[in-house]
Amino acid sequence: MSKTITPLSEVGLFGLMERYEKTFSSHRRSMTIKGLENDAAIISQENASLITGQNILLEGIHFDLTYFPLKHLGYKSVVSAISEIIATGSRPSHISLALGLSGKMSLEAVDQFMEGVKTACDKYNLDLIGFKPSSSLTGMTISVTAYGFSKSSKPISRSGAKETDLLCVTGDLGSAFMGLQLLEREKKVLKETGEAMPDFGSYDYLLERQIKPEARIELLEQLEATSIRPTSMCLIREGLAPSLIRLCKSSKVGCIIFENKIPIDHTTSTLCDEMEFNPLVAALNGGEDYELLFTLSLDDYQKVEDAKDKLNNVFLIGHIWPESKGYILETNAGQEIPLKARGWGKEDYDQ
Amino acid sequence: MSKTITPLSEVGLFGLMERYEKTFSSHRRSMTIKGLENDAAIISQENASLITGQNILLEGIHFDLTYFPLKHLGYKSVVSAISEIIATGSRPSHISLALGLSGKMSLEAVDQFMEGVKTACDKYNLDLIGFKPSSSLTGMTISVTAYGFSKSSKPISRSGAKETDLLCVTGDLGSAFMGLQLLEREKKVLKETGEAMPDFGSYDYLLERQIKPEARIELLEQLEATSIRPTSMCLIREGLAPSLIRLCKSSKVGCIIFENKIPIDHTTSTLCDEMEFNPLVAALNGGEDYELLFTLSLDDYQKVEDAKDKLNNVFLIGHIWPESKGYILETNAGQEIPLKARGWGKEDYDQ
Repeated sequence: MSKTITPLSEVGLFGLMERYEKTFSSHRRSMTIKGLENDAAIISQENASLITGQNILLEGIHFDLTYFPLKHLGYKSVVSAISEIIATGSRPSHISLALGLSGKMSLEAVDQFMEGVKTACDKYNLDLIGFKPSSSLTGMTISVTAYGFSKSSKPISRSGAKETDLLCVTGDLGSAFMGLQLLEREKKVLKETGEAMPDFGSYDYLLERQIKPEARIELLEQLEATSIRPTSMCLIREGLAPSLIRLCKSSKVGCIIFENKIPIDHTTSTLCDEMEFNPLVAALNGGEDYELLFTLSLDDYQKVEDAKDKLNNVFLIGHIWPESKGYILETNAGQEIPLKARGWGKEDYDQ
Repeated sequence: MSKTITPLSEVGLFGLMERYEKTFSSHRRSMTIKGLENDAAIISQENASLITGQNILLEGIHFDLTYFPLKHLGYKSVVSAISEIIATGSRPSHISLALGLSGKMSLEAVDQFMEGVKTACDKYNLDLIGFKPSSSLTGMTISVTAYGFSKSSKPISRSGAKETDLLCVTGDLGSAFMGLQLLEREKKVLKETGEAMPDFGSYDYLLERQIKPEARIELLEQLEATSIRPTSMCLIREGLAPSLIRLCKSSKVGCIIFENKIPIDHTTSTLCDEMEFNPLVAALNGGEDYELLFTLSLDDYQKVEDAKDKLNNVFLIGHIWPESKGYILETNAGQEIPLKARGWGKEDYDQ
C-alpha cells in the first residue's frame, strides 16, 4: 500500500472524475455507448426489459471505517446492489456510483475503495457507467445503482408465490450478522485495552461473510441447468423474516417455515453460544446475508430432488399456505410463532 | 400543514416503504412492469437505448434544511437528476430514490419531501420505480437515479462538437448561485438579529432559481419543432466554465466565448452589485443553473436565425475552435482570459 497521502482538494472534483474514467472505460461491453465520460450513461439494447435497483450505504449505519477495509467496502457496495438484480432471475451488467467523501479522506483512500469496485466489476462482468463524487461534511456515503437486461418478458418478482409452493433459501443465514457482532466486540476490546491485533479465533468464515460477501449469481446457472423456474424470488438483506413477509404480502399468501430447516452455519452457532445470542434471531432478523429466498411450484419438487448435487447450497425451509393462516415459524418444540419484521427499531433512532 | 409529529421509529423501515408504494404505484406507464413493490424495478421496452444518470445531494453541502423547504427539496432532487437525461436530448421517464434519514426527521417531514417528489413526477411525467430509505447518523442524504429511453441510435453526448460549431446556452446563468448567497446572507442576519421574517426585497426570481429550479425539457420540443440537432450537449451544474471545458475535452476541441454574450439576468447583476460580487464569476463558476450547453453546426445558423421566436431562451455565446487554441473568454475590454474549472477548492475541504 502506498504511503503517499494526497488531499482530495488537490485533485478536485473533476480530477477525481477523470481519474476513474480511464480505469473503467478500457474494456467495456459493446452495448455500453457512453459511460463515465458523459453526464448520463447510454446503453443500447434490443427487445429486452431493464431490471434496475438502487442502494445506499452510510458510514456509522452500514459500515464502520475503523475496521472495514476500504477495498472490501467498494466490493461489498457492488455486491449489495447487484444482488437485487439477481433476485429477479437476471444477470446484472452495469452499475453506477455516487459517493459522498469527507475531507478526512485522501485520494489514496478513494483509490482503495475504487479498487474494490473494480475487482467486483471484473468478477461479476459489470461496466461502471456512472461515477459522481461529492464532498461531504459528515461521513462517507455510497449509493450504487445496478442494471441488468432480461430477454424474458416475465422476470421473476416477489409477487408470484402460490398457496402450495415450496420455500427455499440459498446459503446459510445469520453469519454476516454474527461477523459484525464479532467486529464490534473486538473494536470495544481494542478501545479498552489498546491491544493492536484483535483475536478472531476460528471465526474467519463469519468475518468473510460480513466483509467480503458474494452475490448468489451461481443460483441462476443452477436453475438454468436444472430447468427449474422459481415462481417468486427476493433478496435477504435485513434477515429472513422481513424478506419472507414482504414476499408473502406481495403474493397475497401466508407461509410456514421450520426452525430445524433454517440453514445456520456451525460457526454462527458457536459464536452465538459464546456471546449468548439466539442463532435463530441472527438468521431471522440479522442482516446482510445477501442470500436469495424463492418459491417453487410443488410440481418441481421431484426436479429438485433429482438435481440435489447441482443445487448445492439450496435449502428447503418450509412452504406457502393461505394468507389467512399468517406467517409462522414452527419451532423444534412444535410451537407456532408468528414471524415479525424488524427494521428501524427504536434502538436505531434513539441517539 | 399538519401539526402531528410522528417519529420515524414508529413507522419503521418497511412501513415507510409501503407508505409510498401506494402513492407512486397508482397511475404508471404500461412499460413499468414492477416498481416500488419489488427489490429491483422492471421496465419493458423495445428497440430503445437506455439513458441513465445518478446523483447525490448531501445536507450541509448541497442544501441547508434551516431555510430549504422539504417539499422544494424533493422537487429539486428530481429536477437535478432528470436534467442529465435531457442533456442527451432524451426525455426522462423513470426515477428511483435512495434516502438517508436522520432520527431528527419525522414522518411528516418525509411526507413533505415525498410530496415534492410526487409533484415533480406529475409535472415531468415520471414513474418513481425505486424507494430505499435508510436511517442516517448524520444529516439527510438524497440519491436519485434517472432513466430515459431513446429510439435514436445516436443520442447526443458531450463528445460531438466540431471545430467551427456554434456554442449556445439555455436560460440565464448565475442566478441560482446568487439566490443561494441571498439565503445564506439572510440566515446570518437572522442568527444575529433574531428577526423572524427575512427581507428578500425584489429578489424573488433568484430565490425561485435556487429553491424551485425547472428542467429544460422545453428545449427538446423547440429543437424538434425547428429540426435542429445539436452536435453535442451537456448540463450546466457547477457553472458554465467546467461544463464548457468538459464538453470541449470530450470533443477534443477548444472554444471561445464572449463576456457580453453570456446571459445574466438583471436581478443577478443587481444583487451582485449590492454584494460586491462579480456576476461573471457567478455565471462561470456558480452552480445549480440546470441549464443546457450545446453546440450547433454552422450550417444550422440560418435555421436558428429563422426560428428565433421558437427558440426563445436560447443564447449564442461563442464558438468552438481548435483544441490548441484553448478555452478562452473574451472580455468586453477585448482581453482573452483562459477559462478555469473550479470544483472542490480548498475552501470545500478545510473544515
